[in-house]
Amino acid sequence: MLGVTMGDANGVGPEILLQTYQKKMLPPECVVIGDYEILVKCDEMLDLQIPFRRITSVDEFQAGSLNVYDMALLQRNDLEVGRLSQKVGYAARRYVEQATELALAGVIEAIVTLPINKEATRLSDATFTGHTELIAGICGQTNYTMMLASDRLIVTHVSTHVSLKGAVAQVRAKRIYDVIRLTEAAVGKLRPQKRIAVAGLNPHAGEHGAFGSEDIDEIRPAVERASQEGLDVVGPLPPDTVFLQAVNGRYDAVVAMYHDQGHIPMKLLAFDSGVNVTLGLQIIRTSVDHGTAYDIAYQGIASTNSFQAACQMARQLAEG
Amino acid sequence: MLGVTMGDANGVGPEILLQTYQKKMLPPECVVIGDYEILVKCDEMLDLQIPFRRITSVDEFQAGSLNVYDMALLQRNDLEVGRLSQKVGYAARRYVEQATELALAGVIEAIVTLPINKEATRLSDATFTGHTELIAGICGQTNYTMMLASDRLIVTHVSTHVSLKGAVAQVRAKRIYDVIRLTEAAVGKLRPQKRIAVAGLNPHAGEHGAFGSEDIDEIRPAVERASQEGLDVVGPLPPDTVFLQAVNGRYDAVVAMYHDQGHIPMKLLAFDSGVNVTLGLQIIRTSVDHGTAYDIAYQGIASTNSFQAACQMARQLAEG
Repeated sequence: MLGVTMGDANGVGPEILLQTYQKKMLPPECVVIGDYEILVKCDEMLDLQIPFRRITSVDEFQAGSLNVYDMALLQRNDLEVGRLSQKVGYAARRYVEQATELALAGVIEAIVTLPINKEATRLSDATFTGHTELIAGICGQTNYTMMLASDRLIVTHVSTHVSLKGAVAQVRAKRIYDVIRLTEAAVGKLRPQKRIAVAGLNPHAGEHGAFGSEDIDEIRPAVERASQEGLDVVGPLPPDTVFLQAVNGRYDAVVAMYHDQGHIPMKLLAFDSGVNVTLGLQIIRTSVDHGTAYDIAYQGIASTNSFQAACQMARQLAEG
Repeated sequence: MLGVTMGDANGVGPEILLQTYQKKMLPPECVVIGDYEILVKCDEMLDLQIPFRRITSVDEFQAGSLNVYDMALLQRNDLEVGRLSQKVGYAARRYVEQATELALAGVIEAIVTLPINKEATRLSDATFTGHTELIAGICGQTNYTMMLASDRLIVTHVSTHVSLKGAVAQVRAKRIYDVIRLTEAAVGKLRPQKRIAVAGLNPHAGEHGAFGSEDIDEIRPAVERASQEGLDVVGPLPPDTVFLQAVNGRYDAVVAMYHDQGHIPMKLLAFDSGVNVTLGLQIIRTSVDHGTAYDIAYQGIASTNSFQAACQMARQLAEG
């Protein structure tokens, strides 16, 4: 059983969910954690005529309709399409908390999250830093990493939402080793081989120490340790060519040292079909690789590609 | 008149030059600055039967053959294919110095450089930092930038061959403004429009100051200044999507904040056809976007794409 969180009601989450259901691309064993009234209104606005089933416990699931685990936090008139709303932002966070708890309890096997709006959620929770951090916090995990995956490229990240200066400071052997291990465990479920390349931090991977010391002092020891333990891993490799080598089939995944090192190639290659996976949790969580896109919400034009891929990958990871 | 430097004799420079000539893709008004004996030997090894003309002054140029301005620094038996050589590295540096002086004197209009090997050149000059730095030094310029250009994307760089930590420190408003100006001047010669996007430094361009302060404190003022002066420039934009936007036609060039921010997308999109242009010199200088590739030298398999594009762009910049 898959749990899908509806995301921020004012964004593209609800329609992506409904359009995917209508295209029969939603996995059959799936419950939506969200607000029933919002989904019904979205259905009316886009004239989709989806058969809903409102449930208040996952036990009540029945095949043949779209099962909505109703959190009953929002009414129809709470919808303010394309606008920041404190109430909607709060509800979006609650869906995620509920889904995480259901997954931890073993009621659902994996979570797929539709986008929340960080600014909207911050209106009710000033300390909110992000979707992934929220889920990891509930899981009690600190050793996790963001993987972005598409058919052509898989990348994981030593750090994500910190300044570049802060990211440089996080390039430490222990953390890199941990991310290599998390990467290897996940790639094994997605690809037949597990050949991992670790990107350098500095231009040309430091050119033998000419540009910065982190490639020699931090990255190389982490790669050597993982390699000695039997993993198929090389690096640090020059960051400007390692992604192309992976795309060309030489590696199955690349460990990136910071957010944009991994995100720039991924967005270029798979703008709307990448999947964001949180590795290192005791539960499976995948996510779309885009935001709430308020500017196009409820127009029925949002791409469902990333969501479909996220559902598919959640199943793959659950079965793997 | 174009001057082409032969590059490190033990690498792929000589054969790329000769193959390009044989394919009739070398601009007709062109002299090679290099070693005659090496080129003749390369011609024999690859059995190309190119008609050479050895000259010792650009005045002696005659159309109909490959004019080689012979520096007479190497003999046939100095060639050690695919190996680091002090003598060859020294010669490679001398071709560049000679070409730069000829360009400064107005004898040639532009320089196109084939790859040198930094390590080989350092064997005779421990302080050597790079091709571009050498040329800029002879020109007496410090305000220059590396542009990488292909049909699909043009990027310039606020910094290049420094550690990432050092690169963060170089993200300063004055330098960014200068690079925007250099970019605008060059793009005007290559594209019908001059819409410039400036990438942010931090993830999501800092997300309103949540991740680092440089996007607000340094990049934004530089963009505002250039914009107030009438340039068509926006930024800082999220680094992970700005390159895709440029590729999709929304911008003509992207100003990148550090080496890999610009190099990662360029190498993914145009691995062997990108051109490296040094902006901010009083002379025109373009270069191939690859190295000496010792591992495949003198096998006749090196791609001539980047060199052909570099020659073409040198002419375009000279005429623009």
